[in-house]
Amino acid sequence: MSSTTGQIIRCKAAVAWEAGKPLVIEEVDVAPPQAMEVRLKILFTSLCHTDVYFWEAKGQTPLFPRIFGHEAGGIVESVGEGVTDLKPGDHVLPVFTGECKECRHCKSEESNMCDLLRINTDRGVMLNDGKSRFSINGQPIYHFVGTSTFSEYTVIHVGCVAKINPAAPLDKVCILSCGISTGLGATLNVAKPKKGSSVAIFGLGAVGLAAAEGARIAGAARIIGVDRNPKRFNEAKKFGVTEFVNPKDHDKPVHEVIAEMTGGGVDRSVECTGSVIAMNSAFECVHDGWGVAVLVGVPNKDDVFTTHPINILSERTLKGTFFGNYKPRSDLPSVVEKYMNKELELEKFITHEVSFSEINKAFEYMLQGDGIRCIIRMDA
Amino acid sequence: MSSTTGQIIRCKAAVAWEAGKPLVIEEVDVAPPQAMEVRLKILFTSLCHTDVYFWEAKGQTPLFPRIFGHEAGGIVESVGEGVTDLKPGDHVLPVFTGECKECRHCKSEESNMCDLLRINTDRGVMLNDGKSRFSINGQPIYHFVGTSTFSEYTVIHVGCVAKINPAAPLDKVCILSCGISTGLGATLNVAKPKKGSSVAIFGLGAVGLAAAEGARIAGAARIIGVDRNPKRFNEAKKFGVTEFVNPKDHDKPVHEVIAEMTGGGVDRSVECTGSVIAMNSAFECVHDGWGVAVLVGVPNKDDVFTTHPINILSERTLKGTFFGNYKPRSDLPSVVEKYMNKELELEKFITHEVSFSEINKAFEYMLQGDGIRCIIRMDA
Repeated sequence: MSSTTGQIIRCKAAVAWEAGKPLVIEEVDVAPPQAMEVRLKILFTSLCHTDVYFWEAKGQTPLFPRIFGHEAGGIVESVGEGVTDLKPGDHVLPVFTGECKECRHCKSEESNMCDLLRINTDRGVMLNDGKSRFSINGQPIYHFVGTSTFSEYTVIHVGCVAKINPAAPLDKVCILSCGISTGLGATLNVAKPKKGSSVAIFGLGAVGLAAAEGARIAGAARIIGVDRNPKRFNEAKKFGVTEFVNPKDHDKPVHEVIAEMTGGGVDRSVECTGSVIAMNSAFECVHDGWGVAVLVGVPNKDDVFTTHPINILSERTLKGTFFGNYKPRSDLPSVVEKYMNKELELEKFITHEVSFSEINKAFEYMLQGDGIRCIIRMDA
Repeated sequence: MSSTTGQIIRCKAAVAWEAGKPLVIEEVDVAPPQAMEVRLKILFTSLCHTDVYFWEAKGQTPLFPRIFGHEAGGIVESVGEGVTDLKPGDHVLPVFTGECKECRHCKSEESNMCDLLRINTDRGVMLNDGKSRFSINGQPIYHFVGTSTFSEYTVIHVGCVAKINPAAPLDKVCILSCGISTGLGATLNVAKPKKGSSVAIFGLGAVGLAAAEGARIAGAARIIGVDRNPKRFNEAKKFGVTEFVNPKDHDKPVHEVIAEMTGGGVDRSVECTGSVIAMNSAFECVHDGWGVAVLVGVPNKDDVFTTHPINILSERTLKGTFFGNYKPRSDLPSVVEKYMNKELELEKFITHEVSFSEINKAFEYMLQGDGIRCIIRMDA
């Protein structure tokens, strides 16, 4: 048992005081974990577009001051009452959505949309007592998606923490907490392309490239990347993308371009942009008779998906996925093993690295569309 | 070899001379089968809504005079050049869509949408020479969906003929040619409900009742029938339907009614009406996380399917099916066996029987919404 067990820990955290303003490294008090909670020492965190989206707070109710961050790797410092699955010293990945193992979703083999711990971007407090574990001079600082990893220590519900192989390098596998698993699982768990098949990926950001990585691992023969930014094409080759379509280069709809390239359509498609136009193309570009389109990207609230029913009746399948259909606690350890046995390549996703004190640089890279993932080292 | 081999056969056929006018029993000449064709003696045929739809010719280019009919059972009279799978005397079911066994659809395990022989409602002639095999005093009479079973003899492409167990009673299994297999396969092959699960069926006509029969066979615990005609509810109980929803009885959308009945939604749904409103309900009434909605009903040409993308992203699946995903030649024999081993009940679908000379009565029953299937005995 560590000497800090049951004590408040004072440590550094990057606090977002206001929407869109640079984070400020502050000394925060982190309360001990309550029932079914664990306190983690975060070693590495990375920045995901969702952090930036809620930090900008353009589309949602702003909730500040807040500690963002949800892709990370850390070590359990102490555990609260009732926690039996984890102990101090365990290596873990915190996850923005959870797995209570008790609800009908957790009990279903097919779902990972836990009733208790499903992502909630509006809640800034812990479930147990409706309060924050973070404070500065007694002023509560809000949590973000139950993880708040932009802090040297954080408190998380045990259902949102995946215990992983302690031999796995946390500065690499930390990116499996969110975006990379989302794209990878969309392909491997949901689209399930066969060896030798064709796959179209809409959007070549981190999630789309991870979807392409999934297609490469599955042995797809043709991986067609679709993006409006041609700068992304060269980078995408590293992820197995074999051909590129820029919608701006064509007068006809993208699904027609892809149908012509492939003799009627691709076997699978994965939509990672969140644009309803791309969703429609992703659905209509799969081959009739057997094509499967998987939607990953999150649209605007009022967007509507439309298609002619005959496109569905021609034996196409449309599926949606959330976090790549991975159950966080049950499945993430095996994704880490895919990296450990060199099936999955993670290094190519990591394009930048900064020290914790330079965390605002990571935001700048993301806002400039520069690189894929930036690792933030908490010890530097 | 029969004495009629290679000869024109003069026999009775029910000819539709004009859209919507009663059929007329005429003496027609039926030419011998050409390459890859077979000539069948039809013993029993039944009337499907698609016959009536194209006979009314309200939405399509009219093609008359024409011999309708596509659900039937018969015996091979003679075969054309190159036919090796069938021989005179074989018991068969003609099918409105075919299986060439050579195209990429036939070679795919997942598709039954044969490139060569996929349903074509506009073509009134045979593929081999672009001509009809039917004539009256030299005037050609058009075929319908390659089957034209309202005739004592008909000529069909070998790819549209399923050879079945000769012990199977043709007056029962003839209804497996179209509607019953379409509904049954939608559930058994595509929706695939698990034992003990819940299934909603939209539309309790022949196809919907066959979908319910599929759910019963699969062991579904709750089968919820949705129809705007309450007269259909009593009949539907025979097909395993356990609960009923009439959209007219509720102020709220059907998917909300079903979500309340089932604690969040059904596990599977099958849409058999062709209404886009019902399609939308069928999709949105399945449970998030694992629900699968299967569309069967054919909509109007300009209809558009719409839904909020979040309904898809919440891990629902939307699939379309054609002829229940059965490959006609490869799979129909096994459906016949399901009847032979008493797993599948067919008698309850057969509510009327008429002699060939009374064929217009079958149309009247269908137009009045009276009964499910009417068998037409060709020998009477």
